Amino acid sequence: MIDLARRLILYVIPDALGGRGRTLEEQARLALEGGATALQLRHKEASSRRLYDEALVFRRLCDAFGALFIVNDRLDVALASGADGVHLGRADLPVSAARRLAPRGLVIGASARTAEAARLFEEQGADYLGVGALFPTKTKTDAAVIGVEGLRRVCRATALPCVAIGGISEGLARELLDAGAVGAAVSSAVVAADDIREAARLFRNRLE
Amino acid sequence: MIDLARRLILYVIPDALGGRGRTLEEQARLALEGGATALQLRHKEASSRRLYDEALVFRRLCDAFGALFIVNDRLDVALASGADGVHLGRADLPVSAARRLAPRGLVIGASARTAEAARLFEEQGADYLGVGALFPTKTKTDAAVIGVEGLRRVCRATALPCVAIGGISEGLARELLDAGAVGAAVSSAVVAADDIREAARLFRNRLE
Repeated sequence: MIDLARRLILYVIPDALGGRGRTLEEQARLALEGGATALQLRHKEASSRRLYDEALVFRRLCDAFGALFIVNDRLDVALASGADGVHLGRADLPVSAARRLAPRGLVIGASARTAEAARLFEEQGADYLGVGALFPTKTKTDAAVIGVEGLRRVCRATALPCVAIGGISEGLARELLDAGAVGAAVSSAVVAADDIREAARLFRNRLE
Repeated sequence: MIDLARRLILYVIPDALGGRGRTLEEQARLALEGGATALQLRHKEASSRRLYDEALVFRRLCDAFGALFIVNDRLDVALASGADGVHLGRADLPVSAARRLAPRGLVIGASARTAEAARLFEEQGADYLGVGALFPTKTKTDAAVIGVEGLRRVCRATALPCVAIGGISEGLARELLDAGAVGAAVSSAVVAADDIREAARLFRNRLE
């Protein structure tokens, strides 16, 4: 856990419906080759069995690249697949309930848009925060945006490492770090690129 | 666990999309009042948070009536809500993976259509089997049917308590018990009835 912030620098979320026809596994592998430090498996449309099978693949890939592996929403799939952690959004299990269930050392991430939410999730035992959406995004069209100033407010309110998320392009990387984020979480900006590997590499360089 | 078979006599699965506009909670309460010995929470369309909230309601109801409470598919929600167990179908986590994760004493049910599947799930640590579909059903239109003879074959192949499921009407109750089932799992036959309480009572009487 001591290097969690270092592993959250470039947090890539492959997109089962985007990614230009490339499978989740292909997107994941190319992103890791380009320098992703963390992967999140998010696949709302999949059955539990399919998600579990995909999680086993992501686990192997992340092991091969020394990357952090996080499962979105599903604590059971995270535990069954040996993931490093689970990410909980507003429609997922409460952080406090997941913390009670999860073994020590399992990373719990939570989505926070405000300073109040950040403090609450820190208190409930979250290990990092996904902060956003910063900007409008194609992946989650219903999310309210908070901008870089909103990110700064959340980062100031918590001791937890904060990952900026939502509509981030690599030109904004420095600004996010200056606002207090330890890294950026990206989906389409990397996985819908012509060259995923190159897009990840650019992002990673800007974030270092 | 010693009385598991006794608690599987009338296993009711409320239907979020059926139930004639009655909520899952209303369906559950009336079924329990009519004599359901077990409830399964199944709500594929719900977010994790909503399912968790519904599970807490089912937990309280089942406690009040001394009924067994099982969550469909979601081991994490089962654990977080204090359910007695989880039911795993073909599209859910493997029984073996769930058994590794689940604390001792958590009931694991599995769906089995054949003697081979029954033996496999028994080996993997399942505690009971849902056997079917016996007959065509409105709730799961894609399920292959095995009839009472199929039920008998599965019951003979395993030492686990078997609950018959799929298109069962209360007139068939005796036949299912004769074939080796310990009880019946029903959805629309009870929760889509005009009078859920009365429908459950009729079923329960036939199964005793």
